Amino acid sequence: MAKDVHPPRGMRDFLPAEKLKRDFVLSKIRSTYVAHGFQEIETPALEDLERLTSGQGGDNEKLAFRVMKRGEELERSLAANTDGDNLADLGLRYDLTVPLTRYYATNRSKLPKVFKAIQTGPVWRAERPQKGRYRQFVQCDIDIIGDASPLAEIDLLVSSLEALEAIQLTDATIRVNHRVLLAKLLDGLGIPEDGKPAAMIIIDKLDKIFAEGVVKELGEKFGAKVAETATGWLASLQSVIATPAELQDIFTAIESRFGKGRLRFDPTLVRGMGYYTGTIFEIEHPESGSSIGGGGRYDGMIGRWTGEEVPAVGISIGFERAVDLVPNTLADAQPKRLVLVLDDTSAGTIGVALARQKDLFERGYSVRLEQRPKKLNLLLDSLAEQGFTHFAAVGANSNSFESLDIKPIA
Amino acid sequence: MAKDVHPPRGMRDFLPAEKLKRDFVLSKIRSTYVAHGFQEIETPALEDLERLTSGQGGDNEKLAFRVMKRGEELERSLAANTDGDNLADLGLRYDLTVPLTRYYATNRSKLPKVFKAIQTGPVWRAERPQKGRYRQFVQCDIDIIGDASPLAEIDLLVSSLEALEAIQLTDATIRVNHRVLLAKLLDGLGIPEDGKPAAMIIIDKLDKIFAEGVVKELGEKFGAKVAETATGWLASLQSVIATPAELQDIFTAIESRFGKGRLRFDPTLVRGMGYYTGTIFEIEHPESGSSIGGGGRYDGMIGRWTGEEVPAVGISIGFERAVDLVPNTLADAQPKRLVLVLDDTSAGTIGVALARQKDLFERGYSVRLEQRPKKLNLLLDSLAEQGFTHFAAVGANSNSFESLDIKPIA
Repeated sequence: MAKDVHPPRGMRDFLPAEKLKRDFVLSKIRSTYVAHGFQEIETPALEDLERLTSGQGGDNEKLAFRVMKRGEELERSLAANTDGDNLADLGLRYDLTVPLTRYYATNRSKLPKVFKAIQTGPVWRAERPQKGRYRQFVQCDIDIIGDASPLAEIDLLVSSLEALEAIQLTDATIRVNHRVLLAKLLDGLGIPEDGKPAAMIIIDKLDKIFAEGVVKELGEKFGAKVAETATGWLASLQSVIATPAELQDIFTAIESRFGKGRLRFDPTLVRGMGYYTGTIFEIEHPESGSSIGGGGRYDGMIGRWTGEEVPAVGISIGFERAVDLVPNTLADAQPKRLVLVLDDTSAGTIGVALARQKDLFERGYSVRLEQRPKKLNLLLDSLAEQGFTHFAAVGANSNSFESLDIKPIA
Repeated sequence: MAKDVHPPRGMRDFLPAEKLKRDFVLSKIRSTYVAHGFQEIETPALEDLERLTSGQGGDNEKLAFRVMKRGEELERSLAANTDGDNLADLGLRYDLTVPLTRYYATNRSKLPKVFKAIQTGPVWRAERPQKGRYRQFVQCDIDIIGDASPLAEIDLLVSSLEALEAIQLTDATIRVNHRVLLAKLLDGLGIPEDGKPAAMIIIDKLDKIFAEGVVKELGEKFGAKVAETATGWLASLQSVIATPAELQDIFTAIESRFGKGRLRFDPTLVRGMGYYTGTIFEIEHPESGSSIGGGGRYDGMIGRWTGEEVPAVGISIGFERAVDLVPNTLADAQPKRLVLVLDDTSAGTIGVALARQKDLFERGYSVRLEQRPKKLNLLLDSLAEQGFTHFAAVGANSNSFESLDIKPIA
């Protein structure tokens, strides 16, 4: 039997201390959203593969893990001996947005007219594993379905900024743009309608290849005239100060609540997904090289399943990047954690230990039972590493809580 | 576009009220286990398929959802044109025990000598969907690895009974047996060594086909002599009173902590899994027709991955069955939940509403923002169904918390 045993490539085990921190951070985010009147929902990890690859998921569709058919259905597909395309019927979700829109279509008759949803959980992508990129990772989404007004955007942004504050990421800021605005700016550049998606992808690289690179690539794709206009356009973009009227309400509201500087209008912000139709957001933090979340308005997407248009807007905190920024000390404020060391394992001692454990529970302790080992210090040192702070010995004569000698682990 | 949109067959969406109850029950169970000094861990949903089908998972191995290889690897396997067996490389976990033993093998150098683990999360089984049986469902496991003494069993049983009390299942009892004892009883019946697994499966049906059916099936399988002995043996089993010495410590301890009647020795208890080597448990509740959990000692299983024998024992609460037994009222003790109705969506009113929302947070309210609709009562009725209990109108002049007129939703 192999001695070298690991989780699958690109996937992670979490040790107790990591798990404690992750759950603490996740619960802070979730409870902040609940306090803002959002409601938690849950969808299965699997969706019909056809739905996951229907064009709503953009590039992520190619990254879906596909689950093989079973039984007779698999046999029929194998016998048909196709190219492997019809062997799978289910897929693991690669985001929480496609499942949410499917959930809304399934359950809308039982949901409030304006539906404010919280969805947190793992998603899976068959990406080439690399540092900081995992094949299973957690997303934290809030979405408002059924409200076309900017109040929806304001609600999402206020809630997200509060959630980030709850996990001490008070320096996070959110870049904002509007897809319609972006399209109009591209008109000004002289880019034809069918060239806009390609132009957006080039402009999205501004952070990486800078104005010079963007101008060069636009020129290669759309000709010298566009490149020439783009030079001046990009220079002027850097100095845009007034936010457009459509976004004004949003900026005013966030400023009234959090003061200046938490939102930043960025006319070059693009966001990769094709389904955005209005506002788009990206969450940034000075200590993170890449964005720690984002979202936008996707008014057309739900109609895809229901046949009727429903406005929708959402924002997602990238949990893995956020949790790395949270100081480890934040999760340490746990209740008193005590090791109760049994002198022996006779029935008498065990009975007394269980009674004292109950006494300690009533006084707010977590209580772990351990048999006295030959080297008590080694045991206590190892449990101190796991967050236990106190210990007490217990024997057949420890007849009351008062008889316990509770000591800090040195 | 199809108007009829559903989650995959046998899998479920959870509406906000269901999700709230499930999370409440799960958090009660988890926090009880944490209070007992167990530590939460997490493993990926996927494991290498080879590991999931190596014989540790019993009948569940056949139910694993298999995930297709990707890219060149898939192409190579398709080109080899085998019978479909080599097209998958990963599988969704069908229980939490196989991943736990793999986790222990991977991480044991970083874990305490006696490792007390909590693992909760979804598992997946490709079963034929039927009422009350799902293809994705939640398990709640605790396991103690590295302790061969009955203190481990006592710790598990005390913690489980407390967790069940925390969710008001105070009538739950646990049946207990010991695999070695069972094997000895089978010797007495005259069943040969290699017939024991089949005999256990027959005896396990005692609840369903009764003594008469068991005797009949034993006779068919092992001959008239065994059937004859079994008749008397089964009758005598019903009157077994004294628990065997090996289990005595466990019974004494649980009785000292919870009083009589919470554990019941049942010499006919079998448990399906092949890997159990010692004590076995099954959790019952008078309102449930089938068991709501179970477990046992599986001392041989970890050595499978590490090459060295490590004692281990675990118990699992079947979350889906338990949560159905919990009264819906238990999760209702939520903080005050209020709907703040904005008179209009002018920048002034939104700014004031955000300020009042903050005031309400500081007074312990959850606060949901809503625009005033034409029919306020319809909105409030629909949100009352979602658990909101109060509302207040807010306009541009609501300059202080005191100016809010907070009313219960009628």
